[in-house]
Amino acid sequence: MLSGSRYALARLISTVENRSTDILQLMERIYGHVRGIPTLGITGPPGAGKSTFVDRLIARYRQEGKRVAVIAVDPSSPFSGGAILGDRIRMQSHALDAGVFIRSLGSRGHFGGLTMSTSEVVKLFDAAGFDVVLIETVGVGQTEFSVMEVADTVIVILVPESGDTIQTMKAGLLEVADLFVVNKADREGADKIQAELRNMLHLKPATDGWQIPVVLTVASRGQGIDEAFDQIQAHQAWLAASAETRRAEIRRRDFQAIVLEEVGSRILRVIDLPEGPVAELQTRVRDGGLNPYSAALSLFREPARLSQLVSAAFLEPS
Amino acid sequence: MLSGSRYALARLISTVENRSTDILQLMERIYGHVRGIPTLGITGPPGAGKSTFVDRLIARYRQEGKRVAVIAVDPSSPFSGGAILGDRIRMQSHALDAGVFIRSLGSRGHFGGLTMSTSEVVKLFDAAGFDVVLIETVGVGQTEFSVMEVADTVIVILVPESGDTIQTMKAGLLEVADLFVVNKADREGADKIQAELRNMLHLKPATDGWQIPVVLTVASRGQGIDEAFDQIQAHQAWLAASAETRRAEIRRRDFQAIVLEEVGSRILRVIDLPEGPVAELQTRVRDGGLNPYSAALSLFREPARLSQLVSAAFLEPS
Repeated sequence: MLSGSRYALARLISTVENRSTDILQLMERIYGHVRGIPTLGITGPPGAGKSTFVDRLIARYRQEGKRVAVIAVDPSSPFSGGAILGDRIRMQSHALDAGVFIRSLGSRGHFGGLTMSTSEVVKLFDAAGFDVVLIETVGVGQTEFSVMEVADTVIVILVPESGDTIQTMKAGLLEVADLFVVNKADREGADKIQAELRNMLHLKPATDGWQIPVVLTVASRGQGIDEAFDQIQAHQAWLAASAETRRAEIRRRDFQAIVLEEVGSRILRVIDLPEGPVAELQTRVRDGGLNPYSAALSLFREPARLSQLVSAAFLEPS
Repeated sequence: MLSGSRYALARLISTVENRSTDILQLMERIYGHVRGIPTLGITGPPGAGKSTFVDRLIARYRQEGKRVAVIAVDPSSPFSGGAILGDRIRMQSHALDAGVFIRSLGSRGHFGGLTMSTSEVVKLFDAAGFDVVLIETVGVGQTEFSVMEVADTVIVILVPESGDTIQTMKAGLLEVADLFVVNKADREGADKIQAELRNMLHLKPATDGWQIPVVLTVASRGQGIDEAFDQIQAHQAWLAASAETRRAEIRRRDFQAIVLEEVGSRILRVIDLPEGPVAELQTRVRDGGLNPYSAALSLFREPARLSQLVSAAFLEPS
């Protein structure tokens, strides 16, 4: 992958997505090649035209000669077993361009897994020599916002009809956005929603000198893309000033997330072992003889049983 | 709370929401009073009229003399520190009714916390003598779907304009829904979307004899509410047939979630201890001297250090 093989890259992404047990070893080797390339998050309600916007943004980066990776995050796919982003087809214009790599990512496994996988796939793209990563989500929800934590510039895309979305998601949108884009701005109400957003933004305490812009676009016709691109560049330049503090915090959070993920999967594996130290307890819970809270409490209260679980999960070679 | 104090109930809900350290003891005591009352999930995109529908559904249950609890789940609130469901106001018509209890629930703390808290608050309402719990979410996303796992009848509310939402969320919606409601059905396109949904549903393998209905409503005028109510009752009756298997599986999952939650919070507490066994490792990661994967690996590879962490997290009295 480090020598540029797309096939190796695709295979490593699958390894990460499937939460294979040697991820830590893999990521440890990759990490030295991670430079910290710009990572953009693009989120917004379904139908806001995110894919069209991303399509145009890819083209804009390609004009600059940049190699672009795209992660299309689809939180609905744990239900289907595969990604279902029909919108991908719209990005086919870049399908034959070796400077563009598009990958859908679904969430398998337990809570937080999608954010974790996204963060790792970003590092793979970075180590593989790409110049920028775009992370696109399907909708706006807690998972999507959580995935956006991986990005350093978050673009929230709305449309003139998004009044309801703004109302219900107000606090979340304000917290997550570094840049608002009102797409399909040739429709009625674009100026009104731009004014509303600016009004909301004035109520928000300024973050160390970054004034969140609200850009109007008609992505389907390429209008406003240059302005959005310039604002993204401006935000990246602004970030550079505080880069070291930010990166230190990211490293700390990465470390905690990696440890928690590993701890969680080890514990879960041991709980489910048919002959494991918790098997009898779990059977009694399932059969209704013991309530799940009493069972959990007895586990944490009985040093002998807890030692067995902890030993099996952490101290024995797995 | 068990003797009917609304004040005690409200306080216990806050205890659960704040993830206080004695939740397990609290829930253990409550559990014996949990009967397994009907728990309905109501989800759908913002603007679909979920709150109005819930408002009507509450009234319908009140007609039957049932005591109704409502949990309004707001995944955007970790960003604001408080729930921001302006829609709540619409439910004020029940504000003075002692047979109705409405509570917003935000997600604080780490991944999965919201589903966990929701599951526990349902149990509190159950033990407190309510007859039915309605769980309403703000939007449709992975978190919302995850919260819906707590419900036994899930109602997905759409509007005639939800074509985009259906397209992007197809697999997730199909998997999660026990009942579709097309609200605002007096608008153009209601029949079309009903037909589309029915078409999708025909492609889905039937789940042991439950045919997912698609009900048209105009909640603002009370139209279709009786039919939706009847379908909910029908689904609950259908569930009763497989209740024991289902409950056994729920108990097992509850147990695993409780253990994982406790393990995660204990580990995180120890990692962040300034003088703890991982403090030096974390400082080196933050300062950039050690990559987070190497640090995590060294933790899991060095028996001495791992023992210290595990002891501090699990084997010493906290």
